[in-house]
Amino acid sequence: MQHRTINVCVSRSYDIHIGNGLLSRLGELVRPVLGDCRIAVLTDSNVDALYGSRMMEHLACSGYDACKYVIPAGEASKCSDNMLAFLNFLAAEQLTRSDAVIAFGGGVVGDLGGLSASLYLRGVKYVQVPTTLLAAVDSSVGGKTAIDIPAGKNLVGSFYQPSMVCCDTLLMDTLPENIYRDGCAEVIKYGMILDARLYSDLHNVPFDREDVVARCVAIKRDVVQQDEFDNGMRGLLNFGHTFGHAIEKLSDFAVSHGEAVAKGMVIAARMAPLCGLCDVSDSLSRLLISYGFDISCGYNANEIFEALLSDKKRRGGSISVVLPKAVGECILVTLELEELRGLLGKVID
Amino acid sequence: MQHRTINVCVSRSYDIHIGNGLLSRLGELVRPVLGDCRIAVLTDSNVDALYGSRMMEHLACSGYDACKYVIPAGEASKCSDNMLAFLNFLAAEQLTRSDAVIAFGGGVVGDLGGLSASLYLRGVKYVQVPTTLLAAVDSSVGGKTAIDIPAGKNLVGSFYQPSMVCCDTLLMDTLPENIYRDGCAEVIKYGMILDARLYSDLHNVPFDREDVVARCVAIKRDVVQQDEFDNGMRGLLNFGHTFGHAIEKLSDFAVSHGEAVAKGMVIAARMAPLCGLCDVSDSLSRLLISYGFDISCGYNANEIFEALLSDKKRRGGSISVVLPKAVGECILVTLELEELRGLLGKVID
Repeated sequence: MQHRTINVCVSRSYDIHIGNGLLSRLGELVRPVLGDCRIAVLTDSNVDALYGSRMMEHLACSGYDACKYVIPAGEASKCSDNMLAFLNFLAAEQLTRSDAVIAFGGGVVGDLGGLSASLYLRGVKYVQVPTTLLAAVDSSVGGKTAIDIPAGKNLVGSFYQPSMVCCDTLLMDTLPENIYRDGCAEVIKYGMILDARLYSDLHNVPFDREDVVARCVAIKRDVVQQDEFDNGMRGLLNFGHTFGHAIEKLSDFAVSHGEAVAKGMVIAARMAPLCGLCDVSDSLSRLLISYGFDISCGYNANEIFEALLSDKKRRGGSISVVLPKAVGECILVTLELEELRGLLGKVID
Repeated sequence: MQHRTINVCVSRSYDIHIGNGLLSRLGELVRPVLGDCRIAVLTDSNVDALYGSRMMEHLACSGYDACKYVIPAGEASKCSDNMLAFLNFLAAEQLTRSDAVIAFGGGVVGDLGGLSASLYLRGVKYVQVPTTLLAAVDSSVGGKTAIDIPAGKNLVGSFYQPSMVCCDTLLMDTLPENIYRDGCAEVIKYGMILDARLYSDLHNVPFDREDVVARCVAIKRDVVQQDEFDNGMRGLLNFGHTFGHAIEKLSDFAVSHGEAVAKGMVIAARMAPLCGLCDVSDSLSRLLISYGFDISCGYNANEIFEALLSDKKRRGGSISVVLPKAVGECILVTLELEELRGLLGKVID
């Protein structure tokens, strides 16, 4: 069976395998990177119901002694309680430093599994097996892990690279439409920030999933390799996210990540011409609407501004936002907080 | 005022300043590494009562806007609840990525502060200001951070280097005798594993604190520089710790870290001749007793063995222990679990 492999070379070098039906080959793929060890699989209730037993069977067939920990599906699970419960599970299972964690699920499972793997015994190996389009193109590449705390989303986390990522694009067949669409917002983001040809190709729906995932992963890989620890170019990946996170938070996470990023990208695109950059907001809005996104903000400028104050990207009295210069080209712009407040007032009704 | 500075060059390069009265110069010392930023000071109730207001005044005099978070003194505070509460405090204080954490206290505060700093926004700068002898020579050097979870001590943590360490050896004047003695166990450990001259000098009590702290820190620096992530030589620093941690755990932490390490070193020293190495156990026992340590184990061999099974240093069916070859020279020995069970039976009454 053919599949695509993209190598990421940062503080750790690892492969991202992308292809239809790869789950059945997971044991064979992890063997060279994990060797002989015990494996703890973290997954959520949705993924477990659909694919949990297949995962455990494939690992057992490849000779792995694996145990499984299931969290409830949903963003609310990305919390410290679940992380601590999983860490205690790893200890109860007596996993040692030479054992490994597999995060089998979407972004919540990946973030929680990655952070737990980075913390358990100060770090054990982990493998990501993303099951959503969003996780495949976003959180499973680049080693950012996090949980949410009462004060905000993703405020606690680490940089911790997986030992391997295995993305079976066939698993996405069973994704609910809204969850799949969440991933499409990120895919469109990659086109807008760095790849005009991808942006153009995305007008033909449905897109070839394996091809598009691989192209997005390659874009993120290129960015992360230049800026593993998020001190520069990696900020470009936050296009739509600064405002998107604020919207997610204001909605108490009723607005999903992808929906929020779609809204956030439109805010940023409308802000660009006010900062002397070109206006791509009409084109972007049309594309997002064609994918079924509601691009209205839903909050007023002041609400968005207040929510931004706890953003990780704020540094003292200023904040970085990503604005489009053109389709396929975005830049980081540092704005004073008061300047940003004014701009928000102009672009949000 | 003269003081000693030891530079540590690992994934981050930083200075460890050691000297009497350094607290009053903290603001001036941190300025070059932190620049202009906000500072969150983590400390415990004992240190706060004695030195909390002086710390805040010195920072304010140097122009720093600082806030303070106080945890109850004691090992029980090194838990996830306190870590999460402190992380939420940092978010409530709206600390940003360019701000910093100062851990002002002993090992508990250092571990909790370091881990929190490594996790908040995926990592902010932090400075260690150790107030105990143990923290000065051990946990404040080398970037290991951790908390305890129900399943065991230090099972959750990270490798995260401080931006600076400032050790005011005058602060140790107010340490209770048993807390000061805890540090002496680690100091004796350094002599035994790598420095026969230090071991010999420690027979003259009381030792010159500034001198001995600096010598111990330099030893640990040399080890950590060769093995930042604990994959080899750094294991030598665990002399007495594998058995010590088991004793701490069995006693539900009624036996302090230093007391447990003293007992653990004696167990290891008695094991050495059974593994074909020389017998330094009499010399070591005499020195420890002269410092006031009770070197009896207090548990039987089977209890120690069972407690060892959850040790971080276990890898599959074997475990590494550090055994003395001679005074000033120790080696890592990997033992099969059953072999270790047999040896424990012989050296513990």
